[in-house]
Amino acid sequence: MAIQKSSTKTALDLGNFESVVDKKLNSIFQRVTKNRTTIDKSISYALSNPGKRIRPTLVFLVGDFLGIETSRLESIAGAIELIHTYSLVHDDLPCMDDDDLRRGKPTLHKKFNESTAVLAGDALQTLAFNLILDDKNLNISEKHDLLSDLAKRIGPEGMVLGQNLDIEYEKKNPSFDEIMEMNRLKTGLLIEFSILSPFYLKGDLTKDWYQLAKNIGISFQLIDDMLDLSETTEKIGKTAKKDLKNNKKTIPICFGIDKTIIEVDKFKESTMEICEKLCLNNHPLSAFIDSLFSRKF
Amino acid sequence: MAIQKSSTKTALDLGNFESVVDKKLNSIFQRVTKNRTTIDKSISYALSNPGKRIRPTLVFLVGDFLGIETSRLESIAGAIELIHTYSLVHDDLPCMDDDDLRRGKPTLHKKFNESTAVLAGDALQTLAFNLILDDKNLNISEKHDLLSDLAKRIGPEGMVLGQNLDIEYEKKNPSFDEIMEMNRLKTGLLIEFSILSPFYLKGDLTKDWYQLAKNIGISFQLIDDMLDLSETTEKIGKTAKKDLKNNKKTIPICFGIDKTIIEVDKFKESTMEICEKLCLNNHPLSAFIDSLFSRKF
Repeated sequence: MAIQKSSTKTALDLGNFESVVDKKLNSIFQRVTKNRTTIDKSISYALSNPGKRIRPTLVFLVGDFLGIETSRLESIAGAIELIHTYSLVHDDLPCMDDDDLRRGKPTLHKKFNESTAVLAGDALQTLAFNLILDDKNLNISEKHDLLSDLAKRIGPEGMVLGQNLDIEYEKKNPSFDEIMEMNRLKTGLLIEFSILSPFYLKGDLTKDWYQLAKNIGISFQLIDDMLDLSETTEKIGKTAKKDLKNNKKTIPICFGIDKTIIEVDKFKESTMEICEKLCLNNHPLSAFIDSLFSRKF
Repeated sequence: MAIQKSSTKTALDLGNFESVVDKKLNSIFQRVTKNRTTIDKSISYALSNPGKRIRPTLVFLVGDFLGIETSRLESIAGAIELIHTYSLVHDDLPCMDDDDLRRGKPTLHKKFNESTAVLAGDALQTLAFNLILDDKNLNISEKHDLLSDLAKRIGPEGMVLGQNLDIEYEKKNPSFDEIMEMNRLKTGLLIEFSILSPFYLKGDLTKDWYQLAKNIGISFQLIDDMLDLSETTEKIGKTAKKDLKNNKKTIPICFGIDKTIIEVDKFKESTMEICEKLCLNNHPLSAFIDSLFSRKF
């Protein structure tokens, strides 16, 4: 995803933004893992397989739009990526989605073993909390509010509930609304946090921002589910058409690709309207959001 | 374990202390789990199987000795028990220690299924952080320091590393010191936190307290390992002699029961000396510590 330069004032090096975000994250992750033990090595393995770093990129872009120094966004972006990685490591386990491939490489339990994968996921969650707690660029009130919000989004009423519904629905026939709610829980809430978390440091969080974040989070899962059905394993870096094999109840599987495209288009239209209203159009955030809706890998 | 009354001023109802701690914890846990979803129900199942509540009891007793109101200790005691329960749920998984029985009842993955057990453990960890973050009786500076310490003790350089070594050692021949270090990581660090955490609220944390906490933490695992070898499944509420079957490298298995008893006695002697030095002898904490060293179930 190339991010266009724009006329808006920005502290970001946009010419090479993806690699800048990658470097920042790698430097954070190198600080938190020592590479001495099997657990360290397995965590480094999971984190060195970077994917698209969409969540941290959102943190840095929204933060930049609000005029927040990058140094004050780093632990937030890092923590979100750690949580995301923990969820993938556990999600890939044989007792969950049982996937051998993640981002084009063997999943953690394939490269190491199952017990290491369970423990590495556990440790990644702890490290996420620790990263924010140890950040000297945030005051304790900011840390408190960030962690409190994050914990609610990923716990038994958030991401973990979404993951559990995802598995339970394999043997059920959930409604459209139930699947959409599951999507929001398992994927949306953390993406929303990537967009909303910088407001704990600066800025006025309005209803429009909440709606923008919600649109992006839910559409992201809808597009992922379409890609799973329509692309090859090589292109998406994980086993394609796995959802069908696993009897997953995604919107495109249960209600068709056409219906899903109509839904995504509705979210996209609403999102672009909000971008205009929030005067994001001259900021690279807007181009990045646009690229998320055009994902084809 | 009966806790003797003493002449020291205490706000605790010691006549029925075990049931008081149990009631307090159950009321905390009822607030954090809603019992609507499978995840909620599985978490409640894990928490309703209380065991001996040794860690929360230590928090309340040390806190009482320091003159801290019980209401300010509840989320700390609760969070430690949530973390302990998460570690047991994951530890019992087929890919880890593969145990069917915990505290005399089917383990979570037996009662529900493996994916629910992975997710319930994940959620229990999150809930622990959330419980302290939401506590209105602690100020944000106290919360910050407590969480920061806790995160270091349970992460990839603490409890999780200990669990991983425990599994790796099944295929190795670790030295006495290596096993002792593993014991401290997997069990000791959280028990130490139960004793030391109240000092974030009040009191002078001296070297003696650190040593006391360390002694109790390591001895606890040594005694557990002896009980595994010498008692019946019925008595200890989990599969007895499991360590031998799993090729675990515990101190009694590798160096004999006699050597283990000598070690425990050394720790006990040191601990009792410290209790006297810290003037704990008239406080029920001392009797409770004594009972931990005399555990026979």
